[in-house]
Amino acid sequence: MKAPLRHYLQFKDLTADDYGYLFQRTALIKRRFKNYERYQPLVDRTLALIFEKASTRTRVSFEAGMYQMGGSVVHLTTGDSQLGRAEPIEDSARVISRMTDLVMIRTFEQSKIERFAAHSRVPVINGLTNEFHPCQIMADLFTWLEARAMDGHDRIDMAALQGRVVAWVGDGNNMANTWLQAAELLGFTVHLSTPSGYEVNPSVAGLKGSGCYKVFADPLEACRGADLVTTDVWTSMGFEAENDARRAAFARWRVSAEMMAVAQPDALFMHCLPAHRGEEVDADVIDGPQSVVWDEAENRMHVQKALMEWLLLGRIG
Amino acid sequence: MKAPLRHYLQFKDLTADDYGYLFQRTALIKRRFKNYERYQPLVDRTLALIFEKASTRTRVSFEAGMYQMGGSVVHLTTGDSQLGRAEPIEDSARVISRMTDLVMIRTFEQSKIERFAAHSRVPVINGLTNEFHPCQIMADLFTWLEARAMDGHDRIDMAALQGRVVAWVGDGNNMANTWLQAAELLGFTVHLSTPSGYEVNPSVAGLKGSGCYKVFADPLEACRGADLVTTDVWTSMGFEAENDARRAAFARWRVSAEMMAVAQPDALFMHCLPAHRGEEVDADVIDGPQSVVWDEAENRMHVQKALMEWLLLGRIG
Amino acid sequence: MKAPLRHYLQFKDLTADDYGYLFQRTALIKRRFKNYERYQPLVDRTLALIFEKASTRTRVSFEAGMYQMGGSVVHLTTGDSQLGRAEPIEDSARVISRMTDLVMIRTFEQSKIERFAAHSRVPVINGLTNEFHPCQIMADLFTWLEARAMDGHDRIDMAALQGRVVAWVGDGNNMANTWLQAAELLGFTVHLSTPSGYEVNPSVAGLKGSGCYKVFADPLEACRGADLVTTDVWTSMGFEAENDARRAAFARWRVSAEMMAVAQPDALFMHCLPAHRGEEVDADVIDGPQSVVWDEAENRMHVQKALMEWLLLGRIG
Repeated sequence: MKAPLRHYLQFKDLTADDYGYLFQRTALIKRRFKNYERYQPLVDRTLALIFEKASTRTRVSFEAGMYQMGGSVVHLTTGDSQLGRAEPIEDSARVISRMTDLVMIRTFEQSKIERFAAHSRVPVINGLTNEFHPCQIMADLFTWLEARAMDGHDRIDMAALQGRVVAWVGDGNNMANTWLQAAELLGFTVHLSTPSGYEVNPSVAGLKGSGCYKVFADPLEACRGADLVTTDVWTSMGFEAENDARRAAFARWRVSAEMMAVAQPDALFMHCLPAHRGEEVDADVIDGPQSVVWDEAENRMHVQKALMEWLLLGRIG
Repeated sequence: MKAPLRHYLQFKDLTADDYGYLFQRTALIKRRFKNYERYQPLVDRTLALIFEKASTRTRVSFEAGMYQMGGSVVHLTTGDSQLGRAEPIEDSARVISRMTDLVMIRTFEQSKIERFAAHSRVPVINGLTNEFHPCQIMADLFTWLEARAMDGHDRIDMAALQGRVVAWVGDGNNMANTWLQAAELLGFTVHLSTPSGYEVNPSVAGLKGSGCYKVFADPLEACRGADLVTTDVWTSMGFEAENDARRAAFARWRVSAEMMAVAQPDALFMHCLPAHRGEEVDADVIDGPQSVVWDEAENRMHVQKALMEWLLLGRIG
Repeated sequence: MKAPLRHYLQFKDLTADDYGYLFQRTALIKRRFKNYERYQPLVDRTLALIFEKASTRTRVSFEAGMYQMGGSVVHLTTGDSQLGRAEPIEDSARVISRMTDLVMIRTFEQSKIERFAAHSRVPVINGLTNEFHPCQIMADLFTWLEARAMDGHDRIDMAALQGRVVAWVGDGNNMANTWLQAAELLGFTVHLSTPSGYEVNPSVAGLKGSGCYKVFADPLEACRGADLVTTDVWTSMGFEAENDARRAAFARWRVSAEMMAVAQPDALFMHCLPAHRGEEVDADVIDGPQSVVWDEAENRMHVQKALMEWLLLGRIG
């Protein structure tokens, strides 16, 4: 009835085999849901959502996903429960994990979520920190694999990622850090192109080597031959004060039709949203035929359902 | 398992026959619920509630109604998700409608909800806009029909509305606009009496003709012979800056015992609440024997249950 | 299917026999839940949570508890629904109790919750007022009884409380008032030690006599021979402006190892949390072997499940 306690704080907390299982499981859960086959293994389990940064996509995907699996959600906003304000984070972890079965946290410092997890009796999921965004990368990888599925059914082939190239165009942020962890673990390469002053710091990802990424000064060169081109907003939440400086610095890091043209002919475009057309991406790219951004958004929900099932019940079948 | 996609953005989006079905269905759903007969056809369906204006009644009625039907609710407040701020409304519609099964929006401009609906994969319900409040009028009509049901059971007779008179006393607002649409569709007449400067603009309702309403300078004359007398607060949400001017202008538009006395002997009094006794209505009216305001409030929940069932599953039985 | 209407506004609203039933029931509900035995008697029942003061523990314990029992929750925060602002409390009570099955209110004045209850069709639970916190004392008593259960199973023996001593060290607040009601009803004694100016006003508790408590100027003397030592934060929510004055006045009212040493050897330490180590309690006490604060927090949820079941369905079995 209960899996051994483990957390999902960074992408590299799981093995390649775990991801193979989870993506295959996601495909099954998604197909059944689309067919209105009721599947509710998490009845009487409660997920606590703790948000220190506002969110629509993360909230809706976790809430709706948990409900679809039969479970319930307690949503704690910053005003109610800023971690570490009214009491030490460790005490919040002890109390909340006595009352709920699973905790998702969106916060600032990765260290906060690690301190919480260290004192939690139940699994903790990283719903975004300054350093990492592993659930989003799970969704992106699943969307990629789904688009590449040979048979049109839901056979997931992890080998399809081997040797592939992801072009990251823009801010060296938590998404970029997480792409690096995924690349090293799953055997593909990230082409990083960031404005000067906004580079990725590879030490954050804690990589074993530097073989999984290449750095490009020119974003067009980063996209050349890529299988997947992806970007993020120029100014992430919490950095609004830098907005003007960033608009100047990032002007050339706008994903354009020209960049897509030098990528592979069947390259996909991804964006974790919300998007600002005319800033980090041109409208004809995000609204064009290579864009899979709406599938990506929906797949957040489905991969998280597989993740929650696995954290609470272990592998099924 | 799934009804064709349709939205409920204005009262006239449905036909008289649809309302006949929905009110009969409401009566059945309400009776079963009162008898503690469990009926949960919406298990694993999720309703997104998007509020840009605060609300107690609308929230509780939609949330509790959805739960009673077995479904779940994601509640998005303005702070989390102001439509059109972080991303275009069209993008929010695409994302939210990928993750949920039904969306209710309370917002300002009707155009916002129409843009959302145009890009939504799932049904959208108008939970109040500056222009319309169709769920409230559904509740009012059901309450009226229920009070008129001949046999004390739940046989709903839409013909009971034919030729009847509703007196609208007060602001020419979204409630008044919606009453006009209902009157034209269902065959009754609205007596409109509003202070100068606060008249109903019949073009908003988009009526086919002007046969469904009469305008009265004197609110007492509007109430003469009415089967139903109804009003709303002098200052709706969002117009607080006009409060002093409105108090002066509306002084004579207070529903009084005198007004009720010239209406039909069995006339009902309705108010969508919250009420301000001594402003738009006297205490002896709203707390008197002709007032059905608490039934009206409860019936919001029951009509919305029938509406949600119909939007998601189509006609039952 | 439905119990007679009753409310839980003060500890003394129930009899000793009621508490005996509820604690025995709590033990059973808790054990079954720990064993993943699904028990969902409150399917299609909805709990309204109304918070005028922020809360993490109360929210999570009521929400998760209700979900575990199969029910649903509507969470109304102050911004949405400050009682008595947009409409009279009596109107809110009438409306909310038409749409939900049970209401929990956390507010300031006890009179507010009493006015609400007087106009509610459904049971109302006090989730904390300036005067009382009965759900917390239920949790504390259950935790005490559980720790004293002879057979290691869940046989609850209310007689174990007879003649015992609880030392209350600190503010003469809502917790202290509620301890007095519990002591008089269940036959134990409270040793009250509060700083000058922060005394308990026994008239608030409405006791029949003064036999259930003794007042001590010295907190160490209050703890001498006690079976249970308990305290609360120096500055409760809503009194932040008095913070400096309180820190000075309360300096000697910090529960210390010295105080625990003069209590019974098997005395327990309790705190309703959040705790401030180095203020009202030393770290070596709250984090020491006599502390049961995490069980106390978890038991909030379990006693409230038994309470909600009883209010909605009456005694089971």
